[in-house]
Amino acid sequence: MSSYNVGILGATGAVGQQMLECLQERDFPVAGLRLFASARSAGKTIEFKGEKVVIEEATPQCFKGCDIVLGAAGDGIAKELLPHAVEAGATVIDNSHAFRMDEDVPLVVPEINGEDVKWNKGIIANPNCATIIGLVPTWPLHQAAGVQRMIVSTYQAASGAGVPGMRELEAQIAAMGKGEPMPEPSSFAAQLASNLIPQIGGFKYEGFTSEEMKFQNEGRKIMHLPELRVNCTCVRVPVLRSHSESITLEFERDITLEQAREVLASAPGVKLVDDRDAADAHDRFPMPIDTSDQDLIWVGRMRRDISNPNESRGITFWCCGDQIRKGAATNAVQIAQLLVK
Amino acid sequence: MSSYNVGILGATGAVGQQMLECLQERDFPVAGLRLFASARSAGKTIEFKGEKVVIEEATPQCFKGCDIVLGAAGDGIAKELLPHAVEAGATVIDNSHAFRMDEDVPLVVPEINGEDVKWNKGIIANPNCATIIGLVPTWPLHQAAGVQRMIVSTYQAASGAGVPGMRELEAQIAAMGKGEPMPEPSSFAAQLASNLIPQIGGFKYEGFTSEEMKFQNEGRKIMHLPELRVNCTCVRVPVLRSHSESITLEFERDITLEQAREVLASAPGVKLVDDRDAADAHDRFPMPIDTSDQDLIWVGRMRRDISNPNESRGITFWCCGDQIRKGAATNAVQIAQLLVK
Repeated sequence: MSSYNVGILGATGAVGQQMLECLQERDFPVAGLRLFASARSAGKTIEFKGEKVVIEEATPQCFKGCDIVLGAAGDGIAKELLPHAVEAGATVIDNSHAFRMDEDVPLVVPEINGEDVKWNKGIIANPNCATIIGLVPTWPLHQAAGVQRMIVSTYQAASGAGVPGMRELEAQIAAMGKGEPMPEPSSFAAQLASNLIPQIGGFKYEGFTSEEMKFQNEGRKIMHLPELRVNCTCVRVPVLRSHSESITLEFERDITLEQAREVLASAPGVKLVDDRDAADAHDRFPMPIDTSDQDLIWVGRMRRDISNPNESRGITFWCCGDQIRKGAATNAVQIAQLLVK
Repeated sequence: MSSYNVGILGATGAVGQQMLECLQERDFPVAGLRLFASARSAGKTIEFKGEKVVIEEATPQCFKGCDIVLGAAGDGIAKELLPHAVEAGATVIDNSHAFRMDEDVPLVVPEINGEDVKWNKGIIANPNCATIIGLVPTWPLHQAAGVQRMIVSTYQAASGAGVPGMRELEAQIAAMGKGEPMPEPSSFAAQLASNLIPQIGGFKYEGFTSEEMKFQNEGRKIMHLPELRVNCTCVRVPVLRSHSESITLEFERDITLEQAREVLASAPGVKLVDDRDAADAHDRFPMPIDTSDQDLIWVGRMRRDISNPNESRGITFWCCGDQIRKGAATNAVQIAQLLVK
């Protein structure tokens, strides 16, 4: 088996760190590892497979020699630096929003459209976390009955705002727990502990936020369904690192609850946790506390949509997945695995 | 103005305590106040308008002399004791689920079907908290365009499980904040702090829980819409005392976003908080942290449902309301106000 020189842009962030872990766990054939971050972090070291790797400053010139670059930086840095990685001969898998909707850039969830990696021109984009987590279970149901409409309400964790978002929630919980004054929010627009913030991203289209429109626009591109209709409401909740979603689907063709359940029981990337009779809540339905730090999307609370006028064309379910892993780092490393296969 | 002898059954619980506050705030014409609770609490005192009221043990005989009895106890005690209050000549307004679906019992949200109090035969039922909070803004939109279908995902606070539920969440947050071992859950099926529990009540109909079916069944009765189709997903979130809901409505007749916004701007019981340009998040959309300890349902994030094939017949919004107040105690006292008007 060949091995590859892999670079990570934004190696010190929550997603970058998780990418490192995923490369190790999945035993990705790394010949050499390069870690890129801001000048502030340059010179520090991070351990990978027992060896210390020195962080280099991310510059337009830094990517020389890399075969694959995983992007875990923000939109601005991604846009500025990653084209240089392509010029230097690397294939880029980028987690930012910068290139996702470019016509020349495949947007890939391996369980759904892995074959799209083939037409990349140097950059492959990793979708938005909430989109990945909702689409992994939606795709096999689409294959079975043709999804036409999605109504999604999300329950998104602090980790979507990176390490600073997680630290902010932890600091607020600590203050509440100790009865100390609540620290001022900075990652989030308001206090998140014991609260809900029903806006993620700026307002973009008819009052829907950028995060909400990503679900429609990225969903259409990933599933090759340009007419898919999506109504998404994205809400930040005081949970550390797993996103959850309440999803209602409408189908073109009939599908019974039993058929839908069968489909998801064997769907790639999905774990069905839907046992109404289970004595232990952890076996009865997915909860974010159980889905953190693993790679599957857990699906449960499966029901026929009793509000759908066509009784055999609607399914409702609840799903949870780790936002940093399958919502970002794992998906990117899975794409890298497809590339080298 | 006449005044009335008012009794509260379950006076020591979260809802009972809040009923007392609401009676005072709304200056309800109380001639005499009687407080009923378990033998354990009997003999203790609670202050009302500056005077100490001694708690009496709730028994079948205790209600003699009461004109109005507010029920804030659980289903079992309500079913056992409240018929005796009716026999003793009182009109009962009960917050439990015991009588809500009885044909002889009006189920009332004053902003929606206040006139239904007239046909009571001694008992008027107070609806489920999540139902009240979602219906107050849905009703005026129904009047404008005829609601046919509701898709609801709830974000329900710990207070729905009463004082013990709130104390449990607080204890878990305290443990997290201090880095101490997490206390075992007892009010909830799993740890609620930094988690979500997607089941409220037992499984009842096709995998929907009792709490989810209440939204449909109570909603149909309150709005006099026996054919209303409701798909509800109820989720417990780590928030102390305000419920939030993400609601998508489908209408029989056309309604534009501007019309819907206008309707809600002047709807009784509703406060529209929907200013995308507001610099301060607290003015931009409703959040449970802001809606606690007040009586209105705050509505925001209003959008046309871009997934509805009929573009002028779908509206999506987000709302928050205090579960103990408008979700329970305030609504009951409002019903009492209707009775004596």
